[in-house]
Amino acid sequence: MNLPIVKQILSANDLVARENRATFDELGVFVVNVMASPGAGKTSVILATAERLPRQVRLGVIEGDLASSLDADKVAACGIPVTQINTGGGCHLDAPMIRTATAQLPVRDLDLLLIENVGNLVCPADFALGANLALVIASAPEGHDKPYKYPGIFAQADAILLNKSDLLAVFDFDFDFFQRGIAMVNPDAPIFPVSCKTGAGLDAWLAWLLEKQKAFREDERQAARI
Amino acid sequence: MNLPIVKQILSANDLVARENRATFDELGVFVVNVMASPGAGKTSVILATAERLPRQVRLGVIEGDLASSLDADKVAACGIPVTQINTGGGCHLDAPMIRTATAQLPVRDLDLLLIENVGNLVCPADFALGANLALVIASAPEGHDKPYKYPGIFAQADAILLNKSDLLAVFDFDFDFFQRGIAMVNPDAPIFPVSCKTGAGLDAWLAWLLEKQKAFREDERQAARI
Repeated sequence: MNLPIVKQILSANDLVARENRATFDELGVFVVNVMASPGAGKTSVILATAERLPRQVRLGVIEGDLASSLDADKVAACGIPVTQINTGGGCHLDAPMIRTATAQLPVRDLDLLLIENVGNLVCPADFALGANLALVIASAPEGHDKPYKYPGIFAQADAILLNKSDLLAVFDFDFDFFQRGIAMVNPDAPIFPVSCKTGAGLDAWLAWLLEKQKAFREDERQAARI
Repeated sequence: MNLPIVKQILSANDLVARENRATFDELGVFVVNVMASPGAGKTSVILATAERLPRQVRLGVIEGDLASSLDADKVAACGIPVTQINTGGGCHLDAPMIRTATAQLPVRDLDLLLIENVGNLVCPADFALGANLALVIASAPEGHDKPYKYPGIFAQADAILLNKSDLLAVFDFDFDFFQRGIAMVNPDAPIFPVSCKTGAGLDAWLAWLLEKQKAFREDERQAARI
């Protein structure tokens, strides 16, 4: 007798993440999951990215926090469509939250959706949202040892921003040590030192992001042709 | 018929935390659970506290991290008894981990045990360890909005350190706004602005800590007399 063997069971979250991704793909929205410690500069990076986006790339934002709408208020003040998720104590965003939040955005009119996860270098790494890219933001004041202490989230990153890089010297930040820590778990991810305060490095990050978004759009066009 | 009704069921973690606390009380060890974001300066505060402790207060340290022994190495280099817990991806310490780690320390010879939790402003707040005090460390670069976004952990703090306070101006840190955010959830906790780099404010923190430890010792003596 042959017993049926189920090889890989997707978690409920993974199933919803997959559905989110299918929806985003269908609508041609490129989605980035932005993860970082509290205070690393997730909102600042989102606002600095928004400022530098070409006009034809229409941006939407989902903000995740345990409580408050401080970040969504900042984003809304810039005229960007935004939804705030309050997790009510939860330590990460999950795929069903994104599904609900997306329904409240003019998602058909968007090209790019930036999702600001809860400030946390651990738990968000374990919950897929349906994004195309995972961005991890580290920051100079946190110190150069973070990739060694929180390897899981750095291993998952498609790109890493090192924010507040104008203060590397103030914090005796050893960039080589930081880079080696990332290389141990994720040798292929590019690292962009940036400063949202001075604007340094943001052009390189923008160029990389737009290239990825362009490749996604071309894939979508080819898929539509088939 | 009267059905037995169990009012408050302690979680398994709470049960072990209570046992930890009983053990610490019996041995006369005063225990502090140190919680903060990644890179706020938990290890720096522990080392700065160690440096300023009176000789008769014998210190031990438990270090918690997902991976690596970087922090425990720094503490051990100062001649302080220390155990490193690696959670292997876990986002917080729990009471059973503390029980195991304590067994590896000369706990009978200690007066003060500082436990450095995993860098995380969310999950550690939900897991009692058996400590006498909860210390939350915020830091200037993280920004003044953290109490509004992570109210749960600030609500539980017996004291709050604001580290890297030499850089308040660099980060446009609005101390009044920060203080109001804490007052909303925890009006009684003292806030100590400190800088582990310059040493500013550390004496006030030390004086407060030693007063709490002294009160604990006197309680213990009275309990022994009864």
